[in-house]
Amino acid sequence: MELLFLGTGAGVPAKHRNVTSIALKLLEERNQVWLVDCGEGTQQQILNTTLKPRKIDKIFITHLHGDHIFGLPGLLSSRSFQGGESPLTVYGPKGIKDYILTSLKISGTHLKYTLNFHEIYEEGVLFEDQQFKVSCLELDHGIQSFGYRFEEVDHKGMLQVEELKAIGVPFGPLYGRLKKGETITLENGQVIDGKKYVGKDQKGRIVAILGDTRKHPNSAILAKDADVLVHESTFDGEDRKMARNYFHSTTFDAAEIAKEANAKRLLLTHISARYLGKDVVELQKEAKTIFDNSYVVKDFDEIIIPLTRTDK
Amino acid sequence: MELLFLGTGAGVPAKHRNVTSIALKLLEERNQVWLVDCGEGTQQQILNTTLKPRKIDKIFITHLHGDHIFGLPGLLSSRSFQGGESPLTVYGPKGIKDYILTSLKISGTHLKYTLNFHEIYEEGVLFEDQQFKVSCLELDHGIQSFGYRFEEVDHKGMLQVEELKAIGVPFGPLYGRLKKGETITLENGQVIDGKKYVGKDQKGRIVAILGDTRKHPNSAILAKDADVLVHESTFDGEDRKMARNYFHSTTFDAAEIAKEANAKRLLLTHISARYLGKDVVELQKEAKTIFDNSYVVKDFDEIIIPLTRTDK
Repeated sequence: MELLFLGTGAGVPAKHRNVTSIALKLLEERNQVWLVDCGEGTQQQILNTTLKPRKIDKIFITHLHGDHIFGLPGLLSSRSFQGGESPLTVYGPKGIKDYILTSLKISGTHLKYTLNFHEIYEEGVLFEDQQFKVSCLELDHGIQSFGYRFEEVDHKGMLQVEELKAIGVPFGPLYGRLKKGETITLENGQVIDGKKYVGKDQKGRIVAILGDTRKHPNSAILAKDADVLVHESTFDGEDRKMARNYFHSTTFDAAEIAKEANAKRLLLTHISARYLGKDVVELQKEAKTIFDNSYVVKDFDEIIIPLTRTDK
Repeated sequence: MELLFLGTGAGVPAKHRNVTSIALKLLEERNQVWLVDCGEGTQQQILNTTLKPRKIDKIFITHLHGDHIFGLPGLLSSRSFQGGESPLTVYGPKGIKDYILTSLKISGTHLKYTLNFHEIYEEGVLFEDQQFKVSCLELDHGIQSFGYRFEEVDHKGMLQVEELKAIGVPFGPLYGRLKKGETITLENGQVIDGKKYVGKDQKGRIVAILGDTRKHPNSAILAKDADVLVHESTFDGEDRKMARNYFHSTTFDAAEIAKEANAKRLLLTHISARYLGKDVVELQKEAKTIFDNSYVVKDFDEIIIPLTRTDK
């Protein structure tokens, strides 16, 4: 599980920061990629990565501002042109379907795959299967804006096969019984308690990716105990008033949410083109005064999210 | 007057060829830039040039396929965000207005300038003032596709001021009379015929920029005596059948049109990502076998169109 930042800028594209798009790479987990937002030029950014558009299975749109959606018609068209045949679902605020269907219709685009829409009419769980649960809450951005929480189910502890081999457990069905936690007796009389040879369960990972927003209590709920919180940081710490006026957040706002939520790591994105070089270091320093594990991301940063939390 | 190629690829963006957009730079002539087509990522391409979006005054759309229009909502929004206040007019096939207005409305975008639409219901003159005339004809691309002809009015001959100074004509209103072609007599009795001191008229320049199309008679009409013809060349000379099937042109088709039209220069664009390096040289060679002054353009090529033709 990795996060690949395809665009980390705010509002309009800049030379070194394209408008927003974030890929949640679930290649090991399910051979899929999920996208959060898709600003103009996302498909061009993808050309500079190893991502395959046909593996994009779900796209979650946080809100309908142009810098978060204007890349959708092109990406969806190219995915078809490049051989994508599996269905794709777009989740987002009401209006996203009309925007995409109008764009595809007027451009005479016929997709070779099924495009599904899930317009969000209420907060809560949007998707759930045996591996993942995705839920959303509304934020505070003037227009409807959502934050998404991606929760992986816990990983059951692994049977420590090498250790069992070392103490002479012969290959075969005994391993299955040990894995279930049973106690077995070998032919030589040795008694083995399976529970001692099953590793600890590992907690599933939690990633919260929020749309543009002012500081808002729902952000901390979405990011509760998250391994990674991705939060916008359009303004620096001194610009709290500007941030409020424009329905955005400062470095401090984001860091306070990360702290309150007990998140493990804070990734700051949606960075204004005003901040260059040293300014970006300053933004990060500001956030770190409140939440130490804070980083300002840039385009093409790839963040590995390891399994770390054990359960028993 | 220059042509700046912002995107020279076909269908989907590639690493080194973005989808179609061409800027007709009229900075000296009228401090404006006109754009022909606006594929996704055009505003990002512009970031790597000296073009100012606020100087874009007219956008001519050849046809509604996504690789020619999906950059419009973003460019129009950013032009406003970056301080563009002068009106802008979009010319194109019916549907372009609905596409743009739907995109702006759903994204909550409010432009700070007046956006005008001129949807094309019949061929002919679209725009004419004291400097330029723009006309269009339909081509053959499966969906409605237009070619545009940009004609500059002739430049009147310049008064040869240095020569008149050299023979002793004093500064003053005499120059105005000489410029009109009058004959004057100086105080020293010298008789001067103004007509001999006015340079030759120079023919206005003609640029034809065509949308995607099969080889079509209207292309040669649009490109008649043009200084520059910009023609698509999606396929190589051997792929005539493919080109016809997909409503596109080959290198040979384009070169034949240039020859038939008596154009001065042929610029081949809309190049498939299949053609790399040497292949592109081959495409150019093919075209040159029919029309010598042929060039395959690449992204960011800037072509100067000088005044060359004199009239009397």
